[in-house]
Amino acid sequence: MTQINRRRLFGLGAAGVAAVGAGALATQTLTEGTAPAAADATAAPVPFYGEHQAGIVTPAQDRLHFVSFDVVTKERAELIDMLQEWTAAAARMTQGKDAGTFGALGGSPEAPPDDTGEALGLPASGLTLTIGFGPSLFDDRFGLKSRRPAALADLPKFPGDDLRPEISGGDICVQACAHDPQVAVHAIRNLARIGFGKVSVRWSQLGFGRTSSTSRAQATPRNLMGFKDGTNNLKLEDAAMLRDQLWVAPSDGAAWMAGGSYLVTRKIRMNIETWDRAPLSEQEQIFGRNKGEGAPLGGHKEFDEPDFAARGAGGTPVIADDAHVRLAHPSTHGGARLLRRGYNYVDGSDGLGRLDAGLFFIAYQRDPRKQFVPIQRMLARSDSLNEYIKHISSGLFACPPGLRDAGDYWGRTLFT
Amino acid sequence: MTQINRRRLFGLGAAGVAAVGAGALATQTLTEGTAPAAADATAAPVPFYGEHQAGIVTPAQDRLHFVSFDVVTKERAELIDMLQEWTAAAARMTQGKDAGTFGALGGSPEAPPDDTGEALGLPASGLTLTIGFGPSLFDDRFGLKSRRPAALADLPKFPGDDLRPEISGGDICVQACAHDPQVAVHAIRNLARIGFGKVSVRWSQLGFGRTSSTSRAQATPRNLMGFKDGTNNLKLEDAAMLRDQLWVAPSDGAAWMAGGSYLVTRKIRMNIETWDRAPLSEQEQIFGRNKGEGAPLGGHKEFDEPDFAARGAGGTPVIADDAHVRLAHPSTHGGARLLRRGYNYVDGSDGLGRLDAGLFFIAYQRDPRKQFVPIQRMLARSDSLNEYIKHISSGLFACPPGLRDAGDYWGRTLFT
Repeated sequence: MTQINRRRLFGLGAAGVAAVGAGALATQTLTEGTAPAAADATAAPVPFYGEHQAGIVTPAQDRLHFVSFDVVTKERAELIDMLQEWTAAAARMTQGKDAGTFGALGGSPEAPPDDTGEALGLPASGLTLTIGFGPSLFDDRFGLKSRRPAALADLPKFPGDDLRPEISGGDICVQACAHDPQVAVHAIRNLARIGFGKVSVRWSQLGFGRTSSTSRAQATPRNLMGFKDGTNNLKLEDAAMLRDQLWVAPSDGAAWMAGGSYLVTRKIRMNIETWDRAPLSEQEQIFGRNKGEGAPLGGHKEFDEPDFAARGAGGTPVIADDAHVRLAHPSTHGGARLLRRGYNYVDGSDGLGRLDAGLFFIAYQRDPRKQFVPIQRMLARSDSLNEYIKHISSGLFACPPGLRDAGDYWGRTLFT
Repeated sequence: MTQINRRRLFGLGAAGVAAVGAGALATQTLTEGTAPAAADATAAPVPFYGEHQAGIVTPAQDRLHFVSFDVVTKERAELIDMLQEWTAAAARMTQGKDAGTFGALGGSPEAPPDDTGEALGLPASGLTLTIGFGPSLFDDRFGLKSRRPAALADLPKFPGDDLRPEISGGDICVQACAHDPQVAVHAIRNLARIGFGKVSVRWSQLGFGRTSSTSRAQATPRNLMGFKDGTNNLKLEDAAMLRDQLWVAPSDGAAWMAGGSYLVTRKIRMNIETWDRAPLSEQEQIFGRNKGEGAPLGGHKEFDEPDFAARGAGGTPVIADDAHVRLAHPSTHGGARLLRRGYNYVDGSDGLGRLDAGLFFIAYQRDPRKQFVPIQRMLARSDSLNEYIKHISSGLFACPPGLRDAGDYWGRTLFT
């Protein structure tokens, strides 16, 4: 299968010549003609191989296409074959390369193209593809029952949950993040195409405008409630904290997960229109932060530590007992943290005159039983934000460690 | 209402100081901290005032949030008031300014914020807001019956149409285009918020990865079928052609529309998975172009004129009689053209294992009766592409001319 660098191919297309080369010219043409991201660092590829999967501590890209598959083949060998094919495709796509089979560039015109083509001419755009295996994969079908990690325990039902099964769960997930949505969509679509007959798309979700920063080099973005959220997120610079809270250690049991991480997804619908009519003071009380600066109430700057003991006039807490920042704060949970990298979503409108919008929450962690579950249990019970939000989907996945090299494949540590 | 420049406010936030100023520093902080678009020309504002509305020939931005509203107030005066409020908000938002009422920056904490806040810190991002009035606005409610332009005739039903009424039509549309989806979403949401009680969201659509170029400075992008489409689009550089085909002339009747344009939207679902399994040669026959380069079959370069008379071995046409490029070509329609500025969409998956994806088609023109209708009639009857697509929503709107200055408002020429 011929591999074509997208930039180079695009240069060909734009110049309309049949010879390969002239890299600088090609790049320049690309920059002028296509997505705004092309001119800057966000066009560059993210390394695919490494100790951990990319797309976890990678500085959060701006766009998401998340997919959950059901495995439909009953053959373990066929599933492994597909994972190997996926891995090769992911290694290629994340580096901005398509399988090039169009026209004069090779491939048979009598066969379907090896690549769907809509990302031709677009750079790598920071694409990362991150795979995870859901609890349902560890049933009787593939002989994986004994490999299920204890930490991959089904999530409990939380108060207020209004989960829709058809957009929850799944055997395998892939998180595609990129700075260009066309690149993220292209990647998921081509995995679905490769997996045809072996997996079936159960649900998928587009997201934009990341709602967390995963690096100190990124400013904290705003969610659709207009607030900076995730100020206290785990960040890639905190190596000791990541070892403690993010990456599965060999001693954690389920040796195949060492170097991996557990992923929880929650689709959280926001009652946007009701929220927009709430007074500013109420909004700020609910978050426990001011809206403009993002500072904890009583503080001045975003990264000021919240003073949960502070009392105002009449002795009432400055940060309310049910404020989001208090209930979600690590100090409330014995230091437990999450690495969040969620995205806003807008799925059009709901037929009742309201935007169908909210937060697609994504959190990675070493053990959900000690991190997401207790944190969410408290939030679900007491968070004053609950009046304005509803959890409508839930996912839990074991994301294995990174790939060593081109001989490695997604799921190797699990299947061998 | 205090107006705050987003860049400046963001600078404040990031630096955590309480003094206004230091524009250069603020901009630099912004560039480091937020969307990739911020560093380049796509961050800049597009002028709001002018002879024509922005967002039509404006070089197509990369992201779309399109909304269609039903008017729920019965009061003409209330509708006009809202349009004036919308205009003021649009003038502000397109220039990257929010109504600033957060925290120390002014506004009452006991009132809902004047702005929802999620675009604070983001630059203008090339935001354009383009308004249009649908046929249903010209019923008995607002005394507009006699003002309905003849060119705003209801579209006929086309063969194969599978339109869903709940995502079709509407009294008023607003097209928001920007290089940052958060900015486009923010704008529509704030118009909906301002219009609360007077209008209700009927449907809305997010789009990404424009599928047309509206300027010779832009390369032709690819649709989700992987093909370059819209090569022959009307472009802003073609002044004589725009006069002839895009802008309503005073002599066209309906004087209030002079300088405006008619908008047709069609949501076109693609059978992505079936398409992806079609042989390359079939895909290329259907479009009448090759996939890699976008050249018409028998030609070499994208912008080569298709040779519809060319015959291959055995006398069969090189470009099939039912090829898309032939049926949509201006020469097939007495020179009729459209200014297309559509977007790809992916609305998740459809519950049957398939991506719910396709093209949100947007076309502007001087008279749909002479342009969209005859072109689509022929395509709907004969286009070999029909096997892979289905039209599921339709919209038609009269987009008035541009605004002269801050004293003008959306709909003035219609309501006075």
